[in-house]
Amino acid sequence: MTTKEATMERAVAICADGQAQSLAELADFVAIKSVSALPEHRQDVAAAADHLAAKLVAMGFTGVQVIPTAGHPTVIGELLRAPESAPTVLVYGHFDVQPVEPLDEWRTDPWTMTEVDGRVYGRGTGDDKGQLWMHLDAIAALLAAGDGTLPVNVRILAEGEEEVGSPNMSAFLEEYRDRLAADVAVVSDTPTHLEGWPAIGYSLRGLCSLEVELTTLRTDLHSGQFGGAVPNAARAMAALIGTFHDDDGRVAVPGFYDTLTPVSEQELGRLRALPFDEKAWLDKAGAAEVVGEKGFGALELTWNRPTLEVNGMYSGHLGAGTKTIVPGRAVCKVSSRLVSGMDPERTLQLIEQHVREQAPSWAQVRITRTGGAGNPYHTTPSGPVFDLACQALAESFGREVHLVRDGGAIPVVPLMAAQLALPVLLLGFGCPDEAKHAPNEWLSLHHFRAGREALIRFYHRLGTTGGLLENSEN
Amino acid sequence: MTTKEATMERAVAICADGQAQSLAELADFVAIKSVSALPEHRQDVAAAADHLAAKLVAMGFTGVQVIPTAGHPTVIGELLRAPESAPTVLVYGHFDVQPVEPLDEWRTDPWTMTEVDGRVYGRGTGDDKGQLWMHLDAIAALLAAGDGTLPVNVRILAEGEEEVGSPNMSAFLEEYRDRLAADVAVVSDTPTHLEGWPAIGYSLRGLCSLEVELTTLRTDLHSGQFGGAVPNAARAMAALIGTFHDDDGRVAVPGFYDTLTPVSEQELGRLRALPFDEKAWLDKAGAAEVVGEKGFGALELTWNRPTLEVNGMYSGHLGAGTKTIVPGRAVCKVSSRLVSGMDPERTLQLIEQHVREQAPSWAQVRITRTGGAGNPYHTTPSGPVFDLACQALAESFGREVHLVRDGGAIPVVPLMAAQLALPVLLLGFGCPDEAKHAPNEWLSLHHFRAGREALIRFYHRLGTTGGLLENSEN
Repeated sequence: MTTKEATMERAVAICADGQAQSLAELADFVAIKSVSALPEHRQDVAAAADHLAAKLVAMGFTGVQVIPTAGHPTVIGELLRAPESAPTVLVYGHFDVQPVEPLDEWRTDPWTMTEVDGRVYGRGTGDDKGQLWMHLDAIAALLAAGDGTLPVNVRILAEGEEEVGSPNMSAFLEEYRDRLAADVAVVSDTPTHLEGWPAIGYSLRGLCSLEVELTTLRTDLHSGQFGGAVPNAARAMAALIGTFHDDDGRVAVPGFYDTLTPVSEQELGRLRALPFDEKAWLDKAGAAEVVGEKGFGALELTWNRPTLEVNGMYSGHLGAGTKTIVPGRAVCKVSSRLVSGMDPERTLQLIEQHVREQAPSWAQVRITRTGGAGNPYHTTPSGPVFDLACQALAESFGREVHLVRDGGAIPVVPLMAAQLALPVLLLGFGCPDEAKHAPNEWLSLHHFRAGREALIRFYHRLGTTGGLLENSEN
Repeated sequence: MTTKEATMERAVAICADGQAQSLAELADFVAIKSVSALPEHRQDVAAAADHLAAKLVAMGFTGVQVIPTAGHPTVIGELLRAPESAPTVLVYGHFDVQPVEPLDEWRTDPWTMTEVDGRVYGRGTGDDKGQLWMHLDAIAALLAAGDGTLPVNVRILAEGEEEVGSPNMSAFLEEYRDRLAADVAVVSDTPTHLEGWPAIGYSLRGLCSLEVELTTLRTDLHSGQFGGAVPNAARAMAALIGTFHDDDGRVAVPGFYDTLTPVSEQELGRLRALPFDEKAWLDKAGAAEVVGEKGFGALELTWNRPTLEVNGMYSGHLGAGTKTIVPGRAVCKVSSRLVSGMDPERTLQLIEQHVREQAPSWAQVRITRTGGAGNPYHTTPSGPVFDLACQALAESFGREVHLVRDGGAIPVVPLMAAQLALPVLLLGFGCPDEAKHAPNEWLSLHHFRAGREALIRFYHRLGTTGGLLENSEN
């Protein structure tokens, strides 16, 4: 074992020994109710930014800044403790979380991180406070194991708007381009394919969303006096939603699929060779069967195919019991998951046009774009940096690495690829059934341990294996 | 003029002279916040019952009782001051009112009855405290005009649960059948067809309601991870709602129309001859056009045709902004307005069967019946008692009487007809745009004056024209 390798192994041991302390600190981070979607939590998102910044300063990061945006703040900082010739890694994470409702479905308090049977439960444990924390632990262990230097230079980019679509990130990347200069970006915000098996992602779906409001009456009206003769907004909305898909489950918005990049036979073959237990997957979802575009399995539907999804709808009386009214207004919230070849702006325009064409003449239509739109991301999973990451993951988890797509979006990923011209490694440590965005979100402590070890090994080898990045094809 | 007619004219004069005093007393009644739907007003509903009972006692009513029910109390009492051979009238009214929210839309305080330009504004002025008060005024004037006797015997039935569907009225009618024995029931709780023109109603729509819940997933799921491959409850509900009507706006529930009593050509002709300004009616609703079963106008749709109405629906994210989930649960609230020949129980069964047949196999269906179900009411607007009422109205308003249906329900009306075998006269004095159930409810003082006069003339002639009831076909 070389001195350098001994340092790496020491870092792995330090990190493992410090797990209890790290989790205690993570619990403080999880306790901050940084729900970016809800205005009443604006101060909490700011508090999470400050909390993270203080942690970075305490670790020795320099240039730590909590930078206001038009929405929630972004945190940056750097730890340039490697020789200038060493590669620089840009670590991305986010400290905002999804809303916790419905609260009564949580078995533990969402803001009190709770360990149960090898998992920690709480909002943000997996998505993404816990995964961001793993990077900080790995870096701290590498610092502690050596002479205060690092194998790679590290820059941190952490945002408070990922869960609302990162609407200000593109402008931020432009403005702070110099502070984000790196050779590779690493993002841990995705799940593995199977619990206990490491994975590297190479494709993310994009996202765009909008809200449609139909108004058919001055106000809700008495259903005895008016019912039967005036337009019911709830029925109008139901009919409109019914035009979104055809009988085969395909999106019926004209032009929706026109620009799709076909998936290669090679990739399809690899995808079909992945272990996948559809029955178990459905059980996890609590669904009776796969319901989607005809002719595709669940993995293809969630990874390779675009969607048009109703995320919410409401009209009329929402409380208990009966209220005999004809609703005069209805709202539905719609989003579309985009795949390679699709563009958010074009897709929004197609959906908007479809809504205006399909809405009845007697309804006023109001369309509001909601949340940031994100491009899909796709890269070829190969090259030397990719191989190093694969090796570190396989070694730390003791299992082969799955090459995966992800059906979700991480808006910053296509932005970093496009605006900063960076290769992006998706080293995700969530579990496939982590209850992300849902009640009882959790993070596997096995993944927490093995993932931190993998990051230490990856960063170490990236720094000590000279000349790799020059040859990278990413 | 006979002595009897002189008494009648004296009563009319006494009543007109006492209008200011009567309105002052009505204001005290209106001031009681007897909102039956809101638990916090339970004591107020009881106070309104006590207030009314005290008024009846002061007028000389005997056997006045405030009778508790499973919900709010009912008030009964009688004034048997006519010969035993004279007819007995059962006067029905209700002293509960609708909630006043949204408060900021009221131009005067809802609980402070306020006279503006020939109207009195306030919650319950028209629906129904003011209209009940008109009967008390008419009876008091008849008492004062003669020798302390009355042309008809009077029984009062006043309830505190009309605005919540009269859930305890059927049981009450059974239990107090003897105290309610009469020859005809008179109900003033409907609007006229036009302001200034008197009307008699002869038909009310019935009502039944239920709630449908579809569950397609264990919980709401992440639309990136799962979207495209799992059943979306919002979409499933929209599709289900889409099966409720066909393309011509007809209810598509099999059997829904099978038992409808056809509307006679004579009645249709009469209805089509009624003055009706569809444009003004649509403006009031804030609707762009009449939307309903093809082939019918607004009056027929709201009076003669049954409906299946979505009163409310919700699924998934209801708050501001975006939440990228696949909703796993959706609820819709449905009610049906019933017309002659239809039965609430049968209609509920048909709707329930339709929902179970149309819901997809991968959705769990839960159906809950909500609110009380009420039969439609229909009678033939003819016969000697009816003619007397028409005559009194025409004389007092100086205009011809419109024969009208009403699209709403008054649950007690079909119950009195069925359980007490009573003909029911709907002598309503509200105005068509009285803002019933809405902010700025009002009662026309012209209707108040002419209506009280009409009641005096009607009661007087009913008592002095012997043998009429035997020949009544009602």
